[in-house]
Amino acid sequence: MNTFIKTIEMAGIIAFALTGIYEARKKGMDIIGVYSVSMITAFGGGSLRDIILARHPLFWIEHDGYTILLLVLSIVSMATAKDIFSRKYMATGVLALDALGLGLFSASGASVAMRAGCTLFVSSLLGVTTGVFGGVLRDIICNEIPYVFQRTELYATCAFVGAWAYLFVIGTTGNEVAAVITCIVVTFALRMLAIRYKIRLPL
Amino acid sequence: MNTFIKTIEMAGIIAFALTGIYEARKKGMDIIGVYSVSMITAFGGGSLRDIILARHPLFWIEHDGYTILLLVLSIVSMATAKDIFSRKYMATGVLALDALGLGLFSASGASVAMRAGCTLFVSSLLGVTTGVFGGVLRDIICNEIPYVFQRTELYATCAFVGAWAYLFVIGTTGNEVAAVITCIVVTFALRMLAIRYKIRLPL
Amino acid sequence: MNTFIKTIEMAGIIAFALTGIYEARKKGMDIIGVYSVSMITAFGGGSLRDIILARHPLFWIEHDGYTILLLVLSIVSMATAKDIFSRKYMATGVLALDALGLGLFSASGASVAMRAGCTLFVSSLLGVTTGVFGGVLRDIICNEIPYVFQRTELYATCAFVGAWAYLFVIGTTGNEVAAVITCIVVTFALRMLAIRYKIRLPL
Repeated sequence: MNTFIKTIEMAGIIAFALTGIYEARKKGMDIIGVYSVSMITAFGGGSLRDIILARHPLFWIEHDGYTILLLVLSIVSMATAKDIFSRKYMATGVLALDALGLGLFSASGASVAMRAGCTLFVSSLLGVTTGVFGGVLRDIICNEIPYVFQRTELYATCAFVGAWAYLFVIGTTGNEVAAVITCIVVTFALRMLAIRYKIRLPL
Repeated sequence: MNTFIKTIEMAGIIAFALTGIYEARKKGMDIIGVYSVSMITAFGGGSLRDIILARHPLFWIEHDGYTILLLVLSIVSMATAKDIFSRKYMATGVLALDALGLGLFSASGASVAMRAGCTLFVSSLLGVTTGVFGGVLRDIICNEIPYVFQRTELYATCAFVGAWAYLFVIGTTGNEVAAVITCIVVTFALRMLAIRYKIRLPL
Repeated sequence: MNTFIKTIEMAGIIAFALTGIYEARKKGMDIIGVYSVSMITAFGGGSLRDIILARHPLFWIEHDGYTILLLVLSIVSMATAKDIFSRKYMATGVLALDALGLGLFSASGASVAMRAGCTLFVSSLLGVTTGVFGGVLRDIICNEIPYVFQRTELYATCAFVGAWAYLFVIGTTGNEVAAVITCIVVTFALRMLAIRYKIRLPL
């Protein structure tokens, strides 16, 4: 089970990093910029959650595996792919991985916040924050209005619904594994539906 | 007395949130963006102060009242008002509430910093930071150069003078209530004068 | 020896602050904006490092000497110089001081991270972060894509190489003074060469 979570976490981090690499390259950054933006995108949400809740050390500090992984990913993507997203199946793959990561990070944010004694509503907000804030920082650095705040296909909303699914399952069954999986499935399914049918918020 | 402070705090948070809602709507954000920017504007300054001074938990984490209040405010403003600031008396009201909040947050920042052992000057800077940083984050997210740093009517200056008024009264009388009220009155009066007579800094 | 480090630290802080003042003035900010940006540029990298590693109090909080120094610097630069960088030898001087500061902050970041138990690679990343993040924040506030992420003369790379030089010397000799000086010399020399010969990264 732990391996299952670890695998999804890695998939999510890689997907988040790839979106950072993509945006950074569009802005003509060099490898330093690409690598920095990939790390900020992948680690930003979890780091903000941990700083808000005073949890130390941050997860990417303890092990340098992820930082080295993203360095390799950045170099490979700069050296080989003209544009890693130009092939259609790649772009779809990244969107799917990104949705998986969004679900997992949302669950992990809600879980950590709840254990730290936050109310249910604040826990759901910190779930969303964990899922989306890396992308917000990515867009700020790339000098864009954050994608997630714009009137586009549901994104933060999926994380919000997923976080509440997590809180509901954990509250009724106490089963962490079931709650995390429920959150991932709900977030992922809602996000895929939103992309497929171009679902937006009415407001 | 505590009720008095609580009332002003709520007025300030609502005013800060409204300026966030206003800017976010101008940028065409949906409800997720509007709600996020309203929270970042209202909670940003106090959160930065607490993170700098290692005070936990952050004030909006402990109680979810404020986060729910801003959600309601965001939904209502999106659902009803074409532009909540378009009526002139609304805009004036928000400016006045904003000035009240600026004074209170400036006092609270200086107070917290002083108790944490900061020097007087650093305490005054953290008072200003608490008062203005939410607006700085709002403008960065909306992809604008922060209003408060531009050559406009006095804003941070009012918080700075107010913070020193707080530090002076608390240092000479030790009376927290008197010091907070003095700070609010000084900040509010200076800000209103600055708007009325278009007062700017000479430099 | 301690005096030597203190002198370089002050040179670096002044240089970082001057680049902040320069950018803020280009954007037409008033003294509040100029002073704020100078502080964020000078203190941003070290503050982020300390927040990531949960080190408190932040270095500029303990003593208000630096905050007052930057206030004086901001006022003087606003009051006297039409453009402090317009004279060529001034611009060169600031670039040189900035490279000195980059080297010192990079060493201090790597040193603090290593003592906090980070791995070598994460320590080198936090060295770079300490050296460059103030400038990243400066550019974000000034609504620019961070200079350090763009395809320009080596900057973060110099800090990265310098941080590894620090880690190599401290690891082999255990001599902190020698390690810091090596880092400063390596970073400074590489940065000067990069400017002189317009060296950029191949990727």
